[in-house]
Amino acid sequence: MDHDTQQGAGHAPVELLVCVKCRRGEEVPEGGVRPGQRLHDALAAREMPEGVTLTPVECLQNCDYGCSVAMRGGAERWTYVYGNLHEASHPDLLTEGVALYHAARDGVIPWRARPEHFKRNCIARIPPEQAKAPEKDKT
Amino acid sequence: MDHDTQQGAGHAPVELLVCVKCRRGEEVPEGGVRPGQRLHDALAAREMPEGVTLTPVECLQNCDYGCSVAMRGGAERWTYVYGNLHEASHPDLLTEGVALYHAARDGVIPWRARPEHFKRNCIARIPPEQAKAPEKDKT
Repeated sequence: MDHDTQQGAGHAPVELLVCVKCRRGEEVPEGGVRPGQRLHDALAAREMPEGVTLTPVECLQNCDYGCSVAMRGGAERWTYVYGNLHEASHPDLLTEGVALYHAARDGVIPWRARPEHFKRNCIARIPPEQAKAPEKDKT
Repeated sequence: MDHDTQQGAGHAPVELLVCVKCRRGEEVPEGGVRPGQRLHDALAAREMPEGVTLTPVECLQNCDYGCSVAMRGGAERWTYVYGNLHEASHPDLLTEGVALYHAARDGVIPWRARPEHFKRNCIARIPPEQAKAPEKDKT
């Protein structure tokens, strides 16, 4: 079974990583729930798009522009880090955004379809481990 | 041959990715060499530490805090993005820093050994694809 057949829609599975340690510059009382944890929990209460797994992580070290998430998925996709996220306003945006990310085999969401928040709050991206030649024309 | 034997020192190979498109906010005349390309070229003129490969990349989208590099190396290491780098002052720091990164099996350079620039200019980091249980105590 080749890679495409295995994934159904032909795209590698995706991970949505949420920094659950993020304080977003706020004071969090002892034993209080951090904004990053609240963002994670708001996402966990939603159904993730097909092929997407939600993963809590320790610290993405984007502390000045939290809350933060990262999206990654296989050796052919760019990995993206997004910041300035809020648990009240952004869970739907993230759920839709990660579905678009999953739909892009190389992880590059076409500019016109890209959510505004992603356009303005990309903290960094990391290239795929291996570029797939036929996909290059699309980016 | 197991993983450790294969890598000699027992550590997976590392890639130092340099964004060669970075303008670092400067005006670059048509046909001029960009700061990111100059940073890459300064590094290419040096000998990389054993186990480290230098790779030019298109855009790490850390444009507000360039020049930028990323370090990655295998499924057990954290990936790091560092910013605010200058081709005149930072090539030696990067060469030394990436050697320390290579020496850390999980990519987390011990705080005391970590270069000051890395402490202050970490843009983001991405967790390893797989955590190796015995290494967790060290981080």
